[in-house]
Amino acid sequence: MMTVNAEKYLAFCREALIKCGLKPEAAEAVADCAVRSDMMGISTHGSVNLPKYVNKMKAGGLDGNATPDVITEGPTWARLNGNNGFGMYNGRYAMDMAMAKAEQSGMALVTISDSGHCGACSCYSVYAAEKGFLAIAMSNTVKLMCVPGGKGNIIGNAPISYALPREGQHPIFMDIALSEVAKLKVVQYQKEGKSVPDGWVVDQDGLPTNNPQGNNFSMCPMSAHKGYCLAFFVETLTTVLSGGTFNIGSWLFGAPDSHSGLGHTMLVIDLKKMMDPTQFAERLEAYTQEITGAPKALGSDKIFYPGEPNWIAYDNAVQNGLKLTDEMQAAAEALAQMAGLDLSVCV
Amino acid sequence: MMTVNAEKYLAFCREALIKCGLKPEAAEAVADCAVRSDMMGISTHGSVNLPKYVNKMKAGGLDGNATPDVITEGPTWARLNGNNGFGMYNGRYAMDMAMAKAEQSGMALVTISDSGHCGACSCYSVYAAEKGFLAIAMSNTVKLMCVPGGKGNIIGNAPISYALPREGQHPIFMDIALSEVAKLKVVQYQKEGKSVPDGWVVDQDGLPTNNPQGNNFSMCPMSAHKGYCLAFFVETLTTVLSGGTFNIGSWLFGAPDSHSGLGHTMLVIDLKKMMDPTQFAERLEAYTQEITGAPKALGSDKIFYPGEPNWIAYDNAVQNGLKLTDEMQAAAEALAQMAGLDLSVCV
Repeated sequence: MMTVNAEKYLAFCREALIKCGLKPEAAEAVADCAVRSDMMGISTHGSVNLPKYVNKMKAGGLDGNATPDVITEGPTWARLNGNNGFGMYNGRYAMDMAMAKAEQSGMALVTISDSGHCGACSCYSVYAAEKGFLAIAMSNTVKLMCVPGGKGNIIGNAPISYALPREGQHPIFMDIALSEVAKLKVVQYQKEGKSVPDGWVVDQDGLPTNNPQGNNFSMCPMSAHKGYCLAFFVETLTTVLSGGTFNIGSWLFGAPDSHSGLGHTMLVIDLKKMMDPTQFAERLEAYTQEITGAPKALGSDKIFYPGEPNWIAYDNAVQNGLKLTDEMQAAAEALAQMAGLDLSVCV
Repeated sequence: MMTVNAEKYLAFCREALIKCGLKPEAAEAVADCAVRSDMMGISTHGSVNLPKYVNKMKAGGLDGNATPDVITEGPTWARLNGNNGFGMYNGRYAMDMAMAKAEQSGMALVTISDSGHCGACSCYSVYAAEKGFLAIAMSNTVKLMCVPGGKGNIIGNAPISYALPREGQHPIFMDIALSEVAKLKVVQYQKEGKSVPDGWVVDQDGLPTNNPQGNNFSMCPMSAHKGYCLAFFVETLTTVLSGGTFNIGSWLFGAPDSHSGLGHTMLVIDLKKMMDPTQFAERLEAYTQEITGAPKALGSDKIFYPGEPNWIAYDNAVQNGLKLTDEMQAAAEALAQMAGLDLSVCV
């Protein structure tokens, strides 16, 4: 366990990625997304993955120098080809374009295909909300979930995030995948020899089970058909409409030299066109206060607004430094070695 | 149990509503939404409610002659005041405006406040998808759900629907509320003396329970914090941004002479601007085929696309007539009596 200064660690990651061969704009976006995810407590999608991305790039399965191309665009829309660039760079690129269009037109939808793993979708929605926009970010994934009536892995768990801008405070945001729980949680239960609750997984016949055996199970969509229908929607926007491939490869377990072929979709609304910003801010604060100020459950002393636990982690990382777990530290050291840098400058 | 001709029943409802005092455009929208919901198997939100709406109107709590006013609008947005009109009329009105704007600009968001109960949100999304648009419809509701860390009813169950246009086929659509299950389902379990599964309800202390007592329970959001965060988003668009009241009244159990104060929000994307319509249609069919054609679970012979069970019910009602349950028939007879009409003309 090592504690780093968040700002220095961000600079370190950026420099390391440049030294590994990413163009500066890409390194900037990837480092920012990764380290902010770490700071927000979403470290599964953070800097721990950077050496894996770089290895995929070195094998030819990601392009650190790609720039997206416009397939088609108009005042409120664009479809981009990500040209196998890094997902975090492509995601920010698409969101930048969506914000520019929304600022002109009021709202915009931008898709990007042939992309890499984009990490946490909140990297894009929160980024836009911090600039005053209401934003939604979503991505397709490799097939991970079963659907009602089926067996095996049929649909992605379709991560989706929204963020709401606030004045002088962190944005309110959601960042979820549409499986009932993360697969890691099931693996944890298996390790501990515990039965999993109803609704988490189906067995290899597609039947509900509380005792999944080995890897012979599929994740259930959240609330069964509801999560299925939501995932269908996310994939319609990120796969069907993006124009990308239907055959998405696992960015981690797929062939290192092949494109992941991921698609991301960004939707932005310029709220200030629809309502006076002060009025919107006051109404959102009043609404948030009504929810978080409601009576507490027995034993609870707090109702969080969406995203609040992540901001508590973030503020703590700003103030007291970012704690790297052993796994994160090992990844950071691997990255340092690849780049010929010294991790200790971050302390 | 009575079977009516769906087309005749639609005409009957429309005429009855006009005779009860609704303006023709409002009667048209309300009858169409209600009877189509019946046909699609969503009869809890269908014609069974028409006498209740009319009674609320007679008591002064709904205005059958209202027309929405524009609070503010631009190329891709509008905020409307529903002036306490019928929810189904206001919903269609808002969706018509969103489609007209999207046709010009590519996409649009329209909110409407001070509205009545709008029934099933698919009445609006499917309506737009049948005209070629991708559409999302959502509504706030009276507070019905608990949130993590809280107790009691803190947030609405925030119904949301999307619909995807198809060529020569019924739209694909989702129409869900964000509670884990409908409250009616819990009441049914109580009647049968059965314990409810994990994750459905909390007791009056806000603690999970499988044996809710009487009415001393609150519904859980779907997948706990995920459904909470989604409901927060729907209420931000339908309550905060619409400019409507935070104090939404129950359209059914509230004071009959008071406004329900509901808000609805419609989001429309004109897909044909973003992708050649034939290409989009082919890609959506290929994607749908990939999902519904996946291997089936043991004992299952079908994977439905989102909305398919409703379309099976709908097509059956077109072909073989719409079956009115005793409750629906009693409501239809009450409506006939209010209007001085004869229900038997619908057979």
